[in-house]
Amino acid sequence: MININSFGVIGGDRRQAALAESIAKDGYSVYAWGFDHLPLEESVQQATLEEISEKCMVIILPLPVTADGRTLNAPYAEEEIVLDDSFAALMRHREVYGGQVAKLFSTSEYWNAMDVNDYFTREDFTVRNAAATAEGAVEIAMREYDRTICGSRCLVAGFGRIGKALAWMLRGLGASVTVSARKPADLAWIDVYGYTPVKSDEICLREKYDIIFNTVPAMVFSDKTLNRLDPSTLLIDLASMPGGVDFDAARERGIRTVHALSLPGKTAPRAAGEIIKNTIYTMMEE
Amino acid sequence: MININSFGVIGGDRRQAALAESIAKDGYSVYAWGFDHLPLEESVQQATLEEISEKCMVIILPLPVTADGRTLNAPYAEEEIVLDDSFAALMRHREVYGGQVAKLFSTSEYWNAMDVNDYFTREDFTVRNAAATAEGAVEIAMREYDRTICGSRCLVAGFGRIGKALAWMLRGLGASVTVSARKPADLAWIDVYGYTPVKSDEICLREKYDIIFNTVPAMVFSDKTLNRLDPSTLLIDLASMPGGVDFDAARERGIRTVHALSLPGKTAPRAAGEIIKNTIYTMMEE
Amino acid sequence: MININSFGVIGGDRRQAALAESIAKDGYSVYAWGFDHLPLEESVQQATLEEISEKCMVIILPLPVTADGRTLNAPYAEEEIVLDDSFAALMRHREVYGGQVAKLFSTSEYWNAMDVNDYFTREDFTVRNAAATAEGAVEIAMREYDRTICGSRCLVAGFGRIGKALAWMLRGLGASVTVSARKPADLAWIDVYGYTPVKSDEICLREKYDIIFNTVPAMVFSDKTLNRLDPSTLLIDLASMPGGVDFDAARERGIRTVHALSLPGKTAPRAAGEIIKNTIYTMMEE
Amino acid sequence: MININSFGVIGGDRRQAALAESIAKDGYSVYAWGFDHLPLEESVQQATLEEISEKCMVIILPLPVTADGRTLNAPYAEEEIVLDDSFAALMRHREVYGGQVAKLFSTSEYWNAMDVNDYFTREDFTVRNAAATAEGAVEIAMREYDRTICGSRCLVAGFGRIGKALAWMLRGLGASVTVSARKPADLAWIDVYGYTPVKSDEICLREKYDIIFNTVPAMVFSDKTLNRLDPSTLLIDLASMPGGVDFDAARERGIRTVHALSLPGKTAPRAAGEIIKNTIYTMMEE
Repeated sequence: MININSFGVIGGDRRQAALAESIAKDGYSVYAWGFDHLPLEESVQQATLEEISEKCMVIILPLPVTADGRTLNAPYAEEEIVLDDSFAALMRHREVYGGQVAKLFSTSEYWNAMDVNDYFTREDFTVRNAAATAEGAVEIAMREYDRTICGSRCLVAGFGRIGKALAWMLRGLGASVTVSARKPADLAWIDVYGYTPVKSDEICLREKYDIIFNTVPAMVFSDKTLNRLDPSTLLIDLASMPGGVDFDAARERGIRTVHALSLPGKTAPRAAGEIIKNTIYTMMEE
Repeated sequence: MININSFGVIGGDRRQAALAESIAKDGYSVYAWGFDHLPLEESVQQATLEEISEKCMVIILPLPVTADGRTLNAPYAEEEIVLDDSFAALMRHREVYGGQVAKLFSTSEYWNAMDVNDYFTREDFTVRNAAATAEGAVEIAMREYDRTICGSRCLVAGFGRIGKALAWMLRGLGASVTVSARKPADLAWIDVYGYTPVKSDEICLREKYDIIFNTVPAMVFSDKTLNRLDPSTLLIDLASMPGGVDFDAARERGIRTVHALSLPGKTAPRAAGEIIKNTIYTMMEE
Repeated sequence: MININSFGVIGGDRRQAALAESIAKDGYSVYAWGFDHLPLEESVQQATLEEISEKCMVIILPLPVTADGRTLNAPYAEEEIVLDDSFAALMRHREVYGGQVAKLFSTSEYWNAMDVNDYFTREDFTVRNAAATAEGAVEIAMREYDRTICGSRCLVAGFGRIGKALAWMLRGLGASVTVSARKPADLAWIDVYGYTPVKSDEICLREKYDIIFNTVPAMVFSDKTLNRLDPSTLLIDLASMPGGVDFDAARERGIRTVHALSLPGKTAPRAAGEIIKNTIYTMMEE
Repeated sequence: MININSFGVIGGDRRQAALAESIAKDGYSVYAWGFDHLPLEESVQQATLEEISEKCMVIILPLPVTADGRTLNAPYAEEEIVLDDSFAALMRHREVYGGQVAKLFSTSEYWNAMDVNDYFTREDFTVRNAAATAEGAVEIAMREYDRTICGSRCLVAGFGRIGKALAWMLRGLGASVTVSARKPADLAWIDVYGYTPVKSDEICLREKYDIIFNTVPAMVFSDKTLNRLDPSTLLIDLASMPGGVDFDAARERGIRTVHALSLPGKTAPRAAGEIIKNTIYTMMEE
């Protein structure tokens, strides 16, 4: 018996747990697997993979679905699940959602014939996730900085999604905000929105900053650029591994750095889970 | 003798005049043709086309270069200039800039071998122009609306460049801002920036607005949509001809409409001229 | 017969007319006198003073009640009304509201025993009026300035109510905003809100501005201060007569000035009328 | 020998330490006492009270100068200093600054004849301190709330200095902000600045909030008011002891509360120290 209104939630971190609880709060039945070491609200029913397969029309896999390409990403599970034909078989004829699902396809041929949807590639997901990441970056800055953001001089390197949201929030808190970008059109927007624009290859040449946020996934803060910084600068790197900062060189110069990974899952797990949920809802409606 | 530091400015409206004056203010020699009926600052030297050809390495044509495809766009000139081989010949071996230059190429074969640069297709130009247009729209709203923007309920239809800048300014003035869009990613940004998002096909279904700004170049405010509006709504259409409003239907319903064309040239000619100037400077540097 | 739900609206300008219409829109009966030369919506019934006295429990006099201390301020009336005992007698036993009512008391002894309420001295009225005035100033700046507020350098002289609202709106439009004040506490707030603070006695010493707004009712822009301005500065004076600018000296130096009087009645009469209405409603509830 | 450019910094917490370091960074000689258990930058010279008395023209006492009215507030000192005639004698003929100095006067008659200046009563100090406190409250909210401030519904109870700065910052982060106040003028400002106003005696009657910040030093969140809240609300109390929340009743209802004391010293000690420093500088100039 498959219950149309039932969601199966499998594996993942706190975001995935929050997602399960949030769907339950919306009035749906939710069956979850993989949270042996994380307490869930009672509205979510813990279940085996087989039960989930039997009861749920919609199944939500974690973000990322797998880290190593071999096992399911399920840090709070007692048991390790190998991604193979038998796992794939359980998902057959279901509507499957997941984040960064590409690696799944090499684990079983079954996946090719299945309805697998990746919310991580959706632009609306990415925008909301970027906004939550930006706020996480502000939280880290507030925690690490012993002055106030209000009145501080901030540099945001990069004007992609995270940079856009971050610059907006910092200005909203009363910081003096400079944003770097390469494209003339981005520099024009930066100017229009009331920030100070600076070309990417000219950052830190003249101006000093109290806090620098890097959002560019490239070695922007190399030894050479770090050399121009005041040692009292706080440098927060939001670029995923390996990051955009020469951390060794920064340490040598006494520049405090934070490599802020796993945002927004770490700073706002419930928001992160709800963003995933809302994206899946939108995809289901389309 | 060609003077490297001389600019020739030919034809165009108040924006072009402002452009000429602004370049002169930067310390360059500027020779202008086509402003017989518009007083220019003394720093700009009036000249014939032949003199300009002789003295100037860089020549700036108007925006648009031509309206009819046959003659130069020069509303303040005494004389009409036909775009033909002899006009093109005067521009040879010069760096030529202009706005919407496409039609030029059918007026003389010479153009194909020349260095003609269109700033109108540049994204940085478009962004700054959109911001100035948005501010022009705010000015019109202030003039036409007999209450205050602060505290009013505004709808911005469309989240392209103008919509983005306009929503930002309206919120900055204290309006309650709703923005419509079709793409989920745009709706996500609208939400993040603190506006109320509404799907394009659901506008005005429930909410009432004091002022509506249309930025979408399509018939958004058809008879059917107008039917949902309160007759006291002020409707400002920023879409170029034919616009996005059924103006006859609006009139019948007693809805006040403004078709705001020629922004920002009309509301801020000097800003418009300087935007062109800065774009050309950037293009020259590249 | 006195109708509890009837309002009498007497004299005044467009604000007062808008006030009458707005009260009628709220579902009350409204009787108005003094609008012979201004078309009113049909919901407002034109009446004689005697009819108003007979039918209305609440009577609203104009702002100011009188300009010359002798006659009622009623620019749209056919007839002149002298403020004397017989006028006062008509208002007896009514709840009377008006703006700047002080001069009334010297026109008839009857007023001393009557229930006369001045909304003009109410702080909530003053705040909302200041906000509408600030927006009117922005409208004037947009109209007079041939560049854009966005990106311009603005100085707001004075951090009283109008200065506070004006600085907030200008920043919201993307201007770079400097505010002058004398009190250290005001300078602290200016800084916190993200504006550049400058001490009143140091204005224009170093910085140049594109637009200056004076809100201080004192000769701030004397010949000496004007001497420091760039002649291209636009100077908008919001201080009531005689204003805070040496207009003759400004003219000699080629500085463009606007003495913006009668705001917000001129730029947003309906908002101004509704502000009065809401203040009176609040006073009636208290 | 008294050195005009020497500052003596005595006792206090991290703020006072930051103050000492910041004055030293400005190029002055700084002698400090009371930081045996807190490492100071080398630019600050540790000294005895006698040395400070001998060398420094300006002496800065802690905030508050004393907690118990008997001993100096010096949590990082090895030794306890009793406030008596001999302590006062050391400060004679010096310019003495301190925070909340009133209790000092009952410890020795000498103080009456001395030049003691309280920065804590200065409005400019209070404004800047309030802004830093508001940012500290945002930091706490970010840390404790597992969604994002952006998009959340926040209530700020009270529109004093902290309420003003806090509402401004929350809106700047993209929250939907409601502010409660009693005075009609405050409600008018709240409206003008784009927040939703609510009368103090009507809070939480209809609307639900995700995060509530109390800034009012009175029992605003009594059992009765708490009864109206959703149990998932996060309630942050910024009022000093005993606070404005019935914490027991909140606990019973499962409402999470944070009593945020000692802001901004706790979240931004360096900012707090610099605010004190700048206030003292301003006082010295006057």
